Amino acid sequence: MEHSKSDFNEWYNEIIEEAGLVDKRYPVKGMNVWLPYGWAIARNIDEIIRKLMFSSSHQEVCFPLLIPKDQFAKEEEHIEGFGKEVFWVDRGGDTPLDIPLALRPTSETAMYPIFSLWIRTHADLPLKIFQIVNVFRYETKQTRAFIRVREIHFFEAHTCHESFEDAEKQIREDLDIWEKFCEKMALPYMLNVRPDWDKFAGAYYSIAADTIMPSGRPLQIGTMHQYKQNFSKAYNIMFTREDGTRDYVYQTTFGISERIIGAIVGIHGDDRGLILPPEIAPIQIVIVPIVTEEKELVLREAKKLYEEISKVFRSKLDDRENYTPGYKFYDWELKGVPLRIEIGPKDIKNNIITVSRRDTLKRSTVERDNYIEKIGMILNEIQENMRKRAKEKMLDLIKDSKNLDEIKGHEGVDKISWCGSVDCAKKIEEYTGKWILGIPLNEKNEHGKCLVCGKETDMVCFVGKSY
Amino acid sequence: MEHSKSDFNEWYNEIIEEAGLVDKRYPVKGMNVWLPYGWAIARNIDEIIRKLMFSSSHQEVCFPLLIPKDQFAKEEEHIEGFGKEVFWVDRGGDTPLDIPLALRPTSETAMYPIFSLWIRTHADLPLKIFQIVNVFRYETKQTRAFIRVREIHFFEAHTCHESFEDAEKQIREDLDIWEKFCEKMALPYMLNVRPDWDKFAGAYYSIAADTIMPSGRPLQIGTMHQYKQNFSKAYNIMFTREDGTRDYVYQTTFGISERIIGAIVGIHGDDRGLILPPEIAPIQIVIVPIVTEEKELVLREAKKLYEEISKVFRSKLDDRENYTPGYKFYDWELKGVPLRIEIGPKDIKNNIITVSRRDTLKRSTVERDNYIEKIGMILNEIQENMRKRAKEKMLDLIKDSKNLDEIKGHEGVDKISWCGSVDCAKKIEEYTGKWILGIPLNEKNEHGKCLVCGKETDMVCFVGKSY
Repeated sequence: MEHSKSDFNEWYNEIIEEAGLVDKRYPVKGMNVWLPYGWAIARNIDEIIRKLMFSSSHQEVCFPLLIPKDQFAKEEEHIEGFGKEVFWVDRGGDTPLDIPLALRPTSETAMYPIFSLWIRTHADLPLKIFQIVNVFRYETKQTRAFIRVREIHFFEAHTCHESFEDAEKQIREDLDIWEKFCEKMALPYMLNVRPDWDKFAGAYYSIAADTIMPSGRPLQIGTMHQYKQNFSKAYNIMFTREDGTRDYVYQTTFGISERIIGAIVGIHGDDRGLILPPEIAPIQIVIVPIVTEEKELVLREAKKLYEEISKVFRSKLDDRENYTPGYKFYDWELKGVPLRIEIGPKDIKNNIITVSRRDTLKRSTVERDNYIEKIGMILNEIQENMRKRAKEKMLDLIKDSKNLDEIKGHEGVDKISWCGSVDCAKKIEEYTGKWILGIPLNEKNEHGKCLVCGKETDMVCFVGKSY
Repeated sequence: MEHSKSDFNEWYNEIIEEAGLVDKRYPVKGMNVWLPYGWAIARNIDEIIRKLMFSSSHQEVCFPLLIPKDQFAKEEEHIEGFGKEVFWVDRGGDTPLDIPLALRPTSETAMYPIFSLWIRTHADLPLKIFQIVNVFRYETKQTRAFIRVREIHFFEAHTCHESFEDAEKQIREDLDIWEKFCEKMALPYMLNVRPDWDKFAGAYYSIAADTIMPSGRPLQIGTMHQYKQNFSKAYNIMFTREDGTRDYVYQTTFGISERIIGAIVGIHGDDRGLILPPEIAPIQIVIVPIVTEEKELVLREAKKLYEEISKVFRSKLDDRENYTPGYKFYDWELKGVPLRIEIGPKDIKNNIITVSRRDTLKRSTVERDNYIEKIGMILNEIQENMRKRAKEKMLDLIKDSKNLDEIKGHEGVDKISWCGSVDCAKKIEEYTGKWILGIPLNEKNEHGKCLVCGKETDMVCFVGKSY
């Protein structure tokens, strides 16, 4: 690699190609080719999401990609928010279509006309479904792999409920799921209630999970939206209560995009390349035979190890000829494999294996009795260490700032007192180039004075220059 | 259901909605909503394909959906074959795009410009990749769920080789994979080398796997194409041999679409609904407690059974209150669950379980010792019986026909002698409404006279009215 991580953005752009995640040479801006290794990571993450969804009584569906314009335009704020970044299909072959079709930028407007057919009475509620699909946004800003792309690998859960309180409970369930999910990604996050002007188009409120990249810039990696009855009124999704009265359903959504991979790359990686959390690594353990001498014995032993280990862990035996161990180490470090096992004549003689952790780059030896169990413990330690380390790094990038110049001079996220007015928010934005991420969901209010106007306030908020 | 299977097409159209596979009310022609049960089947099939692909050294990728027009149009036959059935994106928001983007109808033209970057020397070959994505075709004919749709769930493998012979070997590997795959689907098929005028646009030759639906109409459910150097020349995919000479790669593709689900529904189903092969059934075993008396004991025992069984098989405990066992039987038969277990006070007392097979509708009892193993054997028997039965049904729909009137009067596929000329093929088509499916790949030629012109020929072919 030419760039060190201190030059974060260049490091990021290079590492994702060098580690074999995507190929950016596809001839459409913001659309990349998922390479086998990158796609394997995406699929592991998808499977983690699926398990969490199934175990919380969600069902998986798949809605069509194309949305007729009249359906797309029913909710006013939504069409205003998304209209400009939609790809439109106007013709099939040379034939103009009767009605233009939008490539889904998100699936509310594909799903909700159908929800209105599915839901009749309270017995049909709650409706909890999700899908994992690609969505499309005509981004005009600079694109960046995983972080800002035009074809986005996307998870979206949609739920319908009898009451606002039930929908609120759903958001709390989503927050629980999100916490479990992020543990597996070893990613820290802040939960910010977005200011009104920055909520999802059509939402009553939006909670965003923001993490902070090593550049100091926050990255939105997950969202939970409370829609109240905004969409159900536009799409006429009604139900009959037990007492016979009719009402519109209350809705929520929960979304995670491929940005999560951008965060994993950016937050965990180092100058040698990726560092993947064991929970999502396509290869958790790589075995490298050291065949300077006694080649046959070593290869036989390495193969035996592989056969035993691969029953329990996703693993790979790198028995490539014509490559030095040093080259192989470099290669698997670049790809972020959490644990490397080296096996040479000495290890065999001493009945041990040598292991090398990608997170700490530390080498140690493990005795062969019950070694599978010991390796499992090391992988758990790696996962836990990555989680802690990432959290500490994130907290280091958050600063209590007391005035606009402090905000401006700090490459990171600032925690400030804010009176809540749009005027003061605008002043912050104009002067510092950062913007209001929102009111932290789980932090206590602190009494202070608005950093701009000096008004007394209990409101604390985060500001940053989001990707 | 209103329609019996004797009225096949109507039966088909109803059963797929009643069994919860898709919702056809989505407001775009030929685009349906995958419901949880249908999507679970699709995903099980995808996973079977993935395993077969990984075990034959293919790697999974994901290419962008949108293909720039200039890339799309490079191979002449291909653009001629697909040009009219492509959805085009001409604008993002209100902004006209510099170059129109095609929604992939298949991915040759998305992948091959990138292959030309990936492949440098013989060391990069063979390249064996696949993806499972949705593709889009602007069908103008009548649409039918799974069989003719505009958004198609699709598996496509693409390979590049050093020589024509290596590419031929790949086709033979594909045929092996296909056989294993179809065993799991319990589906029979004919392998037909399509006539020149009906091969894939751009292919050197096309082998199609056709099955026959109960209506007597053949359905193409899989294809393997030999491209030779047709695409590599258009897309400049070259490699350097060991001796330093340069050549274009030889390519093949292998494709399977959601039509496979149409075949499973149509070929295995009966008047009560679907019958799913155990290998792909989302629920392999449903347990229905019979709680006419001793309710608590029965429910406890049913739950215990479920806990044991679900460790080994995909299973479901139907302990819904307020539904009779009869209603539950009806429901799970409609959904095609291969095996039902009934457990009531008598079964508990006699230390047995009562099992009911969906394929034969026969009930029997199984003693409780080692019952998991016995159930596994029954599931294997169901899979095997379905496979055999479907094959017999297919063979019954093929007839040796000796003249045009016999072909015309027969609702099925005809095996005929044909001289190979386009003229005679046209006459068959015009007179009978059926067309040439192709030359059977694995059947011996038989000496005879062309059914149309009377010329002596060794060529045998199949004709039918394909979906």
